[in-house]
Amino acid sequence: MTAFGPITGDPLDRNRFPIDEWALVETRFEPSDLGVTETLFAVGNGYLGLRGNYEEARDAYADGTFVNGFHETWPIHHAEEAFGLARVGQTMVNAPDPKIIRLYIDDEPLELSTADLLDYQRVLDFRTGVLSRDLVWRTTSGKRVRVRSRRMTSFTERHLGVMQLEVTLLEGNAAVQLSSQLVNRQDRDVRSEQVEPAQGTIADPRKAEQFGRRVLQPQYKDLDEDAGRIALGYQTVDSGMTIGVVVDHHLDSPVPYRTEGRVEDDQGKLIYQIRAEEGHTIRLTKLVSVHTATRVPARELIDRCERTLDRANEDGVEAQFEAQREWLDAFWERSDVELPRQPDLQQATRWNLFALTQATARADGLGIPAKGVSAAGYGGHYFWDAEIYAMPFSTYTTPNATRNALRFRYSLLPAARRRAVDLSQKGALFPWRTINGNEASAYYAAGTAQYHIDADIAYAVSQYVGATGDLDFLVREGVDILVETARLWADIGFWRQENGSSSFHIHGVTGPDEYTTVVNDNLYTNVLARFNLRRAADAVTEVRESQPDAYDEVVRRTGLREEEIAEWREAAAGMHVPYDAKVGIHPQDSRFLDREMWDLEHTSADVRPLLLHHHPLVIYRFQVLKQADVVLAQFLQSEEFTTQEKRADFEYYDPITTGDSSLSAVVQSIIAAEVGYHELALQYFYEAAFVDLADRHANAADGVHVASTGGVWSALVCGFGGFRDHGAGRWHFDPRLPAGWDELSFRLTMRGTRIRVTVTSDALTAIVEDGEGEVTFSVRDTEVTAAPGRPVEVPLDGQGARIEGRPPNPAGTLRADGTVISATVPGR
Amino acid sequence: MTAFGPITGDPLDRNRFPIDEWALVETRFEPSDLGVTETLFAVGNGYLGLRGNYEEARDAYADGTFVNGFHETWPIHHAEEAFGLARVGQTMVNAPDPKIIRLYIDDEPLELSTADLLDYQRVLDFRTGVLSRDLVWRTTSGKRVRVRSRRMTSFTERHLGVMQLEVTLLEGNAAVQLSSQLVNRQDRDVRSEQVEPAQGTIADPRKAEQFGRRVLQPQYKDLDEDAGRIALGYQTVDSGMTIGVVVDHHLDSPVPYRTEGRVEDDQGKLIYQIRAEEGHTIRLTKLVSVHTATRVPARELIDRCERTLDRANEDGVEAQFEAQREWLDAFWERSDVELPRQPDLQQATRWNLFALTQATARADGLGIPAKGVSAAGYGGHYFWDAEIYAMPFSTYTTPNATRNALRFRYSLLPAARRRAVDLSQKGALFPWRTINGNEASAYYAAGTAQYHIDADIAYAVSQYVGATGDLDFLVREGVDILVETARLWADIGFWRQENGSSSFHIHGVTGPDEYTTVVNDNLYTNVLARFNLRRAADAVTEVRESQPDAYDEVVRRTGLREEEIAEWREAAAGMHVPYDAKVGIHPQDSRFLDREMWDLEHTSADVRPLLLHHHPLVIYRFQVLKQADVVLAQFLQSEEFTTQEKRADFEYYDPITTGDSSLSAVVQSIIAAEVGYHELALQYFYEAAFVDLADRHANAADGVHVASTGGVWSALVCGFGGFRDHGAGRWHFDPRLPAGWDELSFRLTMRGTRIRVTVTSDALTAIVEDGEGEVTFSVRDTEVTAAPGRPVEVPLDGQGARIEGRPPNPAGTLRADGTVISATVPGR
Repeated sequence: MTAFGPITGDPLDRNRFPIDEWALVETRFEPSDLGVTETLFAVGNGYLGLRGNYEEARDAYADGTFVNGFHETWPIHHAEEAFGLARVGQTMVNAPDPKIIRLYIDDEPLELSTADLLDYQRVLDFRTGVLSRDLVWRTTSGKRVRVRSRRMTSFTERHLGVMQLEVTLLEGNAAVQLSSQLVNRQDRDVRSEQVEPAQGTIADPRKAEQFGRRVLQPQYKDLDEDAGRIALGYQTVDSGMTIGVVVDHHLDSPVPYRTEGRVEDDQGKLIYQIRAEEGHTIRLTKLVSVHTATRVPARELIDRCERTLDRANEDGVEAQFEAQREWLDAFWERSDVELPRQPDLQQATRWNLFALTQATARADGLGIPAKGVSAAGYGGHYFWDAEIYAMPFSTYTTPNATRNALRFRYSLLPAARRRAVDLSQKGALFPWRTINGNEASAYYAAGTAQYHIDADIAYAVSQYVGATGDLDFLVREGVDILVETARLWADIGFWRQENGSSSFHIHGVTGPDEYTTVVNDNLYTNVLARFNLRRAADAVTEVRESQPDAYDEVVRRTGLREEEIAEWREAAAGMHVPYDAKVGIHPQDSRFLDREMWDLEHTSADVRPLLLHHHPLVIYRFQVLKQADVVLAQFLQSEEFTTQEKRADFEYYDPITTGDSSLSAVVQSIIAAEVGYHELALQYFYEAAFVDLADRHANAADGVHVASTGGVWSALVCGFGGFRDHGAGRWHFDPRLPAGWDELSFRLTMRGTRIRVTVTSDALTAIVEDGEGEVTFSVRDTEVTAAPGRPVEVPLDGQGARIEGRPPNPAGTLRADGTVISATVPGR
Repeated sequence: MTAFGPITGDPLDRNRFPIDEWALVETRFEPSDLGVTETLFAVGNGYLGLRGNYEEARDAYADGTFVNGFHETWPIHHAEEAFGLARVGQTMVNAPDPKIIRLYIDDEPLELSTADLLDYQRVLDFRTGVLSRDLVWRTTSGKRVRVRSRRMTSFTERHLGVMQLEVTLLEGNAAVQLSSQLVNRQDRDVRSEQVEPAQGTIADPRKAEQFGRRVLQPQYKDLDEDAGRIALGYQTVDSGMTIGVVVDHHLDSPVPYRTEGRVEDDQGKLIYQIRAEEGHTIRLTKLVSVHTATRVPARELIDRCERTLDRANEDGVEAQFEAQREWLDAFWERSDVELPRQPDLQQATRWNLFALTQATARADGLGIPAKGVSAAGYGGHYFWDAEIYAMPFSTYTTPNATRNALRFRYSLLPAARRRAVDLSQKGALFPWRTINGNEASAYYAAGTAQYHIDADIAYAVSQYVGATGDLDFLVREGVDILVETARLWADIGFWRQENGSSSFHIHGVTGPDEYTTVVNDNLYTNVLARFNLRRAADAVTEVRESQPDAYDEVVRRTGLREEEIAEWREAAAGMHVPYDAKVGIHPQDSRFLDREMWDLEHTSADVRPLLLHHHPLVIYRFQVLKQADVVLAQFLQSEEFTTQEKRADFEYYDPITTGDSSLSAVVQSIIAAEVGYHELALQYFYEAAFVDLADRHANAADGVHVASTGGVWSALVCGFGGFRDHGAGRWHFDPRLPAGWDELSFRLTMRGTRIRVTVTSDALTAIVEDGEGEVTFSVRDTEVTAAPGRPVEVPLDGQGARIEGRPPNPAGTLRADGTVISATVPGR
């Protein structure tokens, strides 16, 4: 393994993070990587997210409280203008922070970085859904104090967060003071305009945009000291969104206490003072409710918060913890992936799935931000990550979550139609990145030009409908997405006759790999657009034949003309898919093979990732990939390529793929497994499973790599499990269990019936765990049907071909006809 | 002619602008196009420019006073960051305005837009170099006043401007008040951040960047009322440049007068009050001096201004007007182009040559801004326009001006070396646009990616050295430019073997045509880079053989290694020049012919120019040109292509060239003439000659199209005159006199000897007008030598081939092998 190859085993410091298959456990306070642990120990429910900041709010990389979709807008100022560039910047706002509970013992503050800690443990429990911390502190005066805290965001009440801090005097009497706060930290976002990146470096474009001005305007503040209730309401200056945050406090104390409170525009505070004695335990419970809206006055949101809290108070805080546990029991029952006797990977897998559900579970009518609600990286924007990386997990385990996410996309269709007009195109063009539906990508070459997002959304629609049979969604909403995206492809593409035959070409787009941009006939785009065109034609045909009335509605909504259907089928049939017979691979675009090749092997670590150390023009000039492109198309459109083709392409692209994108390792793992690079597949899986846990991209501090968490599930189920969904319920398994693994088992839900699939080295078994239906699928060449009480077992003869090691760099050796591509390290 | 074809004849309203072969004359005040006339009537000397604003400073599009190179810097904020993007914005600053002289008669102000004007004439005289205005005003009280003014920027004293206003009471006595001002108008530059372009429009990227803050910090102010002297000094906030402006006043009055003055940070003012009687003439003379610097305190610049003014005062103002006239007499003697009996084109030609010399004459050690000193369009930046469009005129008529301009480029070589490192390249990469030597192009695709600027500069160096024989410049400075630019090409290009043979390719660059960007093997770039590589190899070989000591110095300065010379020759010999045998043309880049074709014929006027109405991605997807690219290469490297090739290429590209760039028409005119499209050549020439005069691009208000003014000279001399300089003194003429023209004559200076060349329909004659040397050249196949007292006459048999009309759009009809490119109008 080189410094930049995938990792080959468990990379975690197990003294600090001991293995627990159901929790992430930390055993010491470590100030050097606070940003990473804030992300790893964040709690969220897809709507509300609380970064893993300590209650004391003193040692922090970034104090963060995020609400999905709660954003400010701002006019994008382009250094040089051009027609149609994105105009409306959108940035998720750091919401008022309810996490703070400061503890003073005899007026001495608890500060982890200086405190004498006799004991420390922090646990994010995947079954209870609660983050807890337990420490023993010896104060400077020698008193010993136990401090325990719990924190969760509720999966059952999406607007609710629960926090507790419990102080026990183990030794000595003391004056205990608890200062609970609700703080609008937005002014931390104000960046001095003078701070420019140091010479030779750049501001990392993947971080969030920061504002140079006040964002949240105070609209409401209130303090009810007796009830322990603090309320703050705000409106954003430009987007006009409103937010209400209300916090309720309950103090359990064995002795009487004094309370003191105050509220200002940007802060509410309640201070409790208790003269406690040795053995006393004092517990402060904070219930927080957050509501946001686009047109509702902040005052009204405060009312909603109060209703949420009243309800929670009625049930009591323990009921919240119980409901959380129940929700997660059900979640794991339908979603868990088990890796018996692989405790490190079992833990990492569950952390990923838990992080994924924390990013998505209660997004409800909102999108899925690239970092969930764990941080503001990528500005809280929604990308194709949602459809291609996050949704497969929910589609096959919690289909309703996918339905909500796709209905959110549907709500952006009007904006996408307008965007197509801006780009001189028919149909709809979904924004590459957005919160409010408008394109927010300020760099079109690696943004707007990624037209493939249209096909990605169509793909997710099709996958969801196929897996669930939800024709209601298809007929009322999904079909409109299919029609408008197909229209875009039919319009942007054109026919070209060459050597006597005619084919359909798509020019001037960027594929998933952002290390070459604005190319002609990007393979991924063409192959997915072909699928999109076919699927749209099939869908409208199905609807027309099966539901004539519904079809009339579709025609009314979309202006669909009969001849369009034929046009789409023709374009799909004539779609040009680049193939180079001499090299025997599919070029990533029409001119990919003409480029010089980047010599990654001799590229030193200090100029990686490439995008942070080279001008885009330099990178674009070479055969070098940020992430899988052809290889991803071959996973998503598995039936369209032979295994031989997949292997040849994988062998060509793998050595020139940097993996500078966290979206790459999971895809490389899946195809490596399919074509026979078993060890490499496992290495890529480790890489993906630990991308955040081991901070493999040195930016976990900016938030969870949500796409990768979803990809971890796909790598297990589709890579090692060998699952492929060929559409319309045609499921197929061709397992690739890694050497040394005893067993892999996972759940899939097909049209309401859930099966549990277990792969061992010599068999695949499937049993119906839930539901009344049958599930039919093939395992390699055998078709079987599992039904309630009727499990199936299919013997496996090995795990496919086996190729050792890694494919070598293809530079210099490729073409038999004397054509050679040289490999270079630019700038050396 | 369509709305967007070239014009076919004189487009000016000759009632308003009557023809005068030696002046631009305007006969009425017209408020509707003040921006255009401010540009047309601007005066400048290449250093100091005064827009054609009226003295009253009330009716104006933009009050402008510009000093070449006087700029503010600012950090470029990219909407999305990437490594190596331009960081330092540079914008020419509107300098303090000395032009204002307000006239009040009996306290009634003269305001042109409301005044009752009995007579009005404004004249920019190309022989005297003076802008004058003469009007008769009837005041509301019925008095008649004659107001005459003169204004010039001196060609002999580059820091000096002269203004006069003369008032004569034609009827009635009156109280005359003159208020002369010097105003720092910078606060007009402050743009409200709230002003965003209207929906569906964009801020024109060709206009100057405006500041949102104060730029000029007051450093000095003084008023000497008795001497009539006002002085203001400033320093820019970020670039730290300083400017001093001093104005002297002299009032001639037949009666005593009162004076009153004051000076503030941003304004100095002198007010003269005269109780004048009918018949009296009062004349106010203003002498203004401007000095700028990068490190000198403003106070010291004021001293310099005062010395300039003291000298001017000593000689008297009339001496300044005389010196101006003498300077221009000499200028026209060595530079004039005569078109007998073509008064409209004669006037337009002289306006262009006069505007060109106003933009360049006294730039001295500075660059040539795209708009000269007539306005701040394009931020006052220096582009390749200087080398390819402006310098040929000076190289062949005033070589010392080219020498200064190339020495300026040489001074930027250290910055260009650093820029190459930023772009992971060896050698030097000159910035696409700059004032201070740093890249200021914020949009790399149509900026930094235009690496061809390296070859353009090398081309100008070579042209200058060839025409002048100035080996001193070559050996001391020019060769360093050739070496470092050749190094860049050798490094950025790479060898590729294909079909058994090996060729040298340059990928990921943008050619002159900005309607396709970041392409592989752009023809212009490859052909000019080939020239650059060869020329560098030749130059260092020459120096090594003829001046071994000088060669050692070159090696010391540049680290030149022997083997590099061979490497350059090999790269040049192996340079890939795209040619498509099936279509029979040179594609603009490796994939140009694969693109869909834009149907310009059916593209309506309201979506033109294309760049202001289409997203770049849309434009880049098509075969459509902003400006000549292949065709320009065929002009600059004329010997490398056959006439047949030039004709085929011209016929292919001409119908798909929008001419949205003002750099295009002159080139199309030259090649149209060469290949036989005589009428079309003349139409393009009209288009170019009137680009500003008739505001053909609707942005003359933003300044003179300096490149086009230079191109007008090239179109006459190289297009109709058929002149080609094949380097090393090999001059050739193959005239193409337009039908209906009696005669065309022009001057060229070769190694100190000036010849006058006259082309008629049946002969070319040349006489030595100045100098002692002989000039040898060929006319078609005949080689001749002109010497002092020994003119030559070569008979001409016609004007070459003659093809009527315009070439048709090549869409749909091209390929014999069944390959068809379709033509489309995007968005329809």
